[in-house]
Amino acid sequence: MRYELYYWPGIQGRGEFVRLALEEAQADYVDVARASESEGFGMPALMRLLEGDDVRCPPFAPPFLKAGDQLIGQTANILLFLGPRLGLAPEDEADRLWAHQLQLTIADLVTEIHDSHHPIASGLYYEDQKPEATRRSSDFTETRLPKFLHYFETVLARNPAGSSWSVGDRLTYVDLSLFQLMAGLHYAYPHAMKPLARSVTRLEALYQRVGARAHIAAYLKSPRRQPFNRDGIFRHYKELDR
Amino acid sequence: MRYELYYWPGIQGRGEFVRLALEEAQADYVDVARASESEGFGMPALMRLLEGDDVRCPPFAPPFLKAGDQLIGQTANILLFLGPRLGLAPEDEADRLWAHQLQLTIADLVTEIHDSHHPIASGLYYEDQKPEATRRSSDFTETRLPKFLHYFETVLARNPAGSSWSVGDRLTYVDLSLFQLMAGLHYAYPHAMKPLARSVTRLEALYQRVGARAHIAAYLKSPRRQPFNRDGIFRHYKELDR
Repeated sequence: MRYELYYWPGIQGRGEFVRLALEEAQADYVDVARASESEGFGMPALMRLLEGDDVRCPPFAPPFLKAGDQLIGQTANILLFLGPRLGLAPEDEADRLWAHQLQLTIADLVTEIHDSHHPIASGLYYEDQKPEATRRSSDFTETRLPKFLHYFETVLARNPAGSSWSVGDRLTYVDLSLFQLMAGLHYAYPHAMKPLARSVTRLEALYQRVGARAHIAAYLKSPRRQPFNRDGIFRHYKELDR
Repeated sequence: MRYELYYWPGIQGRGEFVRLALEEAQADYVDVARASESEGFGMPALMRLLEGDDVRCPPFAPPFLKAGDQLIGQTANILLFLGPRLGLAPEDEADRLWAHQLQLTIADLVTEIHDSHHPIASGLYYEDQKPEATRRSSDFTETRLPKFLHYFETVLARNPAGSSWSVGDRLTYVDLSLFQLMAGLHYAYPHAMKPLARSVTRLEALYQRVGARAHIAAYLKSPRRQPFNRDGIFRHYKELDR
């Protein structure tokens, strides 16, 4: 099965949570919008599925995944589907639901990270909502971010199979997403993260552990990994990072 | 199986999406935080699971559901679990994933509705973020809300089994959530919704159809249905509804 991942080119964005799972599992996939138009890929292929009149299960927004004739949207839903197929989900049904619950909580945090620099409108530039972003990011770094990170630290601490992974005794897609979360937060909020990271040692160790895995390390060094930048979800603005 | 639903008392909030499913299916359930402390329920019971040191799978926030010894958080995840058990999910696996995808998109809209009056911090009062709320709600009513509602209208229009339901040829939990969405939006944004509602006729008809179902109509008239108010997600402020 060759998976087709559809996501905006030029940013890691929400697509990255899916990419990391595909890369860890060495799955056969095309990153459609970044692939060649002459082969039928590229942005036109993405827009066709996003806006085509004949798409029976239209996605609201990228990322979405094509797997055979199934079209699946919503990052956490894509991972719910891919997890068992890529060997990145727990075996047990209750644990699968728990993993998905954690992924949805990660998604909530990702939205809050985005809104820390775009609190008024995703359709406006950051520069058009700077005073509001200053207020929101200050609440974010002081209140929301610590609350979320301490929550995930607690999850690791309470895992009966040990604190190496978030669910059970081996890597799942949740751990890959926690890695991406920490990587993005260290990039966007280095100042706020410095003291915080010291208080979530299990999460920090998980971040290091995942980044050192052979397939992930190779991916991070490859051109397939796009750098963080000021168009994505994780953005570094000195004035927001206090 | 007697389900225990845990959600903040005094508001419909995200708990209402779960309540509607339990009510439609006439499931045996306790609305824990609103039930009697002397019977072991009430707010202390909620706080025990939310903050207790011995909770293995701690929820980040209400709502969460206790089903036997399983504790399940995240609204859409609860409905993913309950759907098949209450006869409110499609039979087919691909359709179940599609229903969940729609539920996650509803969840995204719910967050944007909340943030339309709380764009800076959920921990502050509306009165402390009024200028920002004015800006955000103006983008919300002009751009985001029409985009979401037209999306759901398209989903209904493209259902190969007909536009009566969002997935397949019978009611699912997604339809109940779309009902709640429309009810809340009509309450919070009557002015913005007036012209919009005329352009999403299938969604409006679905809203009427669900509200007229025997179990739902009886629930809406019962004291179990809490009224909309200015503490919940759907809030009516005239100055935000232009």
